Amino acid sequence: MTNKNISMIALVIGMAVAAQAQVSPTTIKEDFKPSSVNQPGHDYPQVNSQGYARFRVKAPQADSVRVSLGLGGRGGTKLIKGADGFFTGTTEGPMDEGFHYYHLTIGGGIFNDPGTLNFYGSTRWESGIEIPAADQEFYALKDVPHGHVQQILFPSKSTNTSRRAFVYTPPGYDKEKSTRYPVLYLQHGWGEDETAWSNQGHANLIMDNLLAERKIKPFIIVMTYGMTNEVKFGGIRSFKIEPFQTVLTDELIPYVDANFRTYADKTHRAMGGLSMGGMETHTITLNKPELFDYFALLSGGTYTPEELKNKPKVKLIFMSCGSKEKPDGVINAASALKTAGYNAVSYVSANTAHEFQTWRRSLHELAPLLFRN
Amino acid sequence: MTNKNISMIALVIGMAVAAQAQVSPTTIKEDFKPSSVNQPGHDYPQVNSQGYARFRVKAPQADSVRVSLGLGGRGGTKLIKGADGFFTGTTEGPMDEGFHYYHLTIGGGIFNDPGTLNFYGSTRWESGIEIPAADQEFYALKDVPHGHVQQILFPSKSTNTSRRAFVYTPPGYDKEKSTRYPVLYLQHGWGEDETAWSNQGHANLIMDNLLAERKIKPFIIVMTYGMTNEVKFGGIRSFKIEPFQTVLTDELIPYVDANFRTYADKTHRAMGGLSMGGMETHTITLNKPELFDYFALLSGGTYTPEELKNKPKVKLIFMSCGSKEKPDGVINAASALKTAGYNAVSYVSANTAHEFQTWRRSLHELAPLLFRN
Repeated sequence: MTNKNISMIALVIGMAVAAQAQVSPTTIKEDFKPSSVNQPGHDYPQVNSQGYARFRVKAPQADSVRVSLGLGGRGGTKLIKGADGFFTGTTEGPMDEGFHYYHLTIGGGIFNDPGTLNFYGSTRWESGIEIPAADQEFYALKDVPHGHVQQILFPSKSTNTSRRAFVYTPPGYDKEKSTRYPVLYLQHGWGEDETAWSNQGHANLIMDNLLAERKIKPFIIVMTYGMTNEVKFGGIRSFKIEPFQTVLTDELIPYVDANFRTYADKTHRAMGGLSMGGMETHTITLNKPELFDYFALLSGGTYTPEELKNKPKVKLIFMSCGSKEKPDGVINAASALKTAGYNAVSYVSANTAHEFQTWRRSLHELAPLLFRN
Repeated sequence: MTNKNISMIALVIGMAVAAQAQVSPTTIKEDFKPSSVNQPGHDYPQVNSQGYARFRVKAPQADSVRVSLGLGGRGGTKLIKGADGFFTGTTEGPMDEGFHYYHLTIGGGIFNDPGTLNFYGSTRWESGIEIPAADQEFYALKDVPHGHVQQILFPSKSTNTSRRAFVYTPPGYDKEKSTRYPVLYLQHGWGEDETAWSNQGHANLIMDNLLAERKIKPFIIVMTYGMTNEVKFGGIRSFKIEPFQTVLTDELIPYVDANFRTYADKTHRAMGGLSMGGMETHTITLNKPELFDYFALLSGGTYTPEELKNKPKVKLIFMSCGSKEKPDGVINAASALKTAGYNAVSYVSANTAHEFQTWRRSLHELAPLLFRN
């Protein structure tokens, strides 16, 4: 097993311990409100102003209902059955700000909470909950011009099918007839898919808001499925980059350049990814140095000066992670790269772990640095 | 309560009894295969060549697991617990061809089958299963040029938010810079949302395939949420058309005409809808006769010559339903309209009920009749 494989496994394990609540002696404030990602008309789960989550699930004949969130290492939150047939419970401590995946265990089986929307993570559609963050305005739905998120089905000879990708085009793209745009290819993490960056990540709203504030230049974002060789549960050891690299570089990029108004050159092309998507970005940008001028690893490893030594010059190397991961890695890597003359930037998201709040913030930090020159 | 309200309630009740299996003495063939809408890597539920569905759910400590599909009036399919902790069971008879919503009852609560993708129906994200149909090629994913399905967020002053719609643009839309297209506004049914026509209906694939066979002229389809006044469970009695009509005609249509290359006139605009969406189509086309030249009601009622008497002439009135609904209604209505000089067409889907297979086929029949002149 190579070092790269070991790093990938470490990332996956990192995901498993994320979203731990912290035990707190504080009195729980009774100002609970429905989570913003509940299904329409559903009052539970709820979240209070301290970040505690409260769950309520109808299962009058069940013996036990457990929520996978709460205290990661201690089996989550056990709900208590009431006389009305509903199981109810509150996390032992406040949760980290932002989005968390979770599921229920009922009768020994794993099911989703019927109160919430589902999000693809851990190679399944999971329940989701949103703990309001102090900085949530940057990914909020606001009354600003909105870009479109297009589902495309692009031909893929290497996998003998039409593959799906989502393409964010900035506001005005469809009105203007001639403007061309640079492109960021942005990858999800292990167990997620091409829906993650817009559903959980709000990449489109982050872009819309940054554009409304004139903090970035408009660009296109392309998001596709990165586990081309059908990695199953725990199968990341057998992950090989080649099938996905072929799809991305030989099939998707040519399709996007033919069907969207892009600048089809290295100077106007970035690749980034979170977690396993960062590992893919790392490998593909080094394998195909002629394609991208901007590299971004979001909780997805680092570059070293040695790796880049005999490659063409790049315009930006961005590396980020949450403060609850091991932030020294990206800080030291950026420092070493800067010493070696590279334009490297590190970003550490305060008080977040290997979860989407880290990656929303990372995209928000990255976007203004892209395609500036 | 008006007659219109009564019709709507009848439609909703119709939905509840759909998808009934028929008891059959046939031997069950052991050629079960995973349903095409299972989650990646999941082997169950399965379907055999006769249309029987088999379910398998892990819940070792549960007392009972029931599937809502099978025999609608008799409580669905009860699964039997095996020594391995999995509950397994097969429908008592074959299911109708096409797509069916369902859910599990475990411990007295309603949950989704972790094996399948979820689809928004009955005002919740439900499990789905696909019974392969003899005519499934017309909505299959094929190696043909594919249109895009764009998620747009359009400003809505009347509801004080940005609202979501999906816009199908035909293959080549993004490559060509000047071609303009007609538009079909296509509505979902009660309890569904703007995701239904592409997720369950495969409207985009139906269009791609018809275009590849040169059976239709290219047009745009726009799909948005039609239950603007937040109808809750059973709340259809309080449904009012005005809030949705305002969103559609004063906000969405102008946005689409401003942001897409449409022909922005009556001659190039159609409205259609299934079930409650048909009722909306019926009401709005009569309220706003200056907007649409093509009307389509899919299991969604009928027009009479009296209703149309003092209105401007229209180019097409299309009315359809499944043979297991009451097909005389659309047949007789089309006949009466034809006698009165209207270009009316009825279509009856063979051996299907108030379900999506009826509406997939209806769109397939409707599309070639639109925008011909």
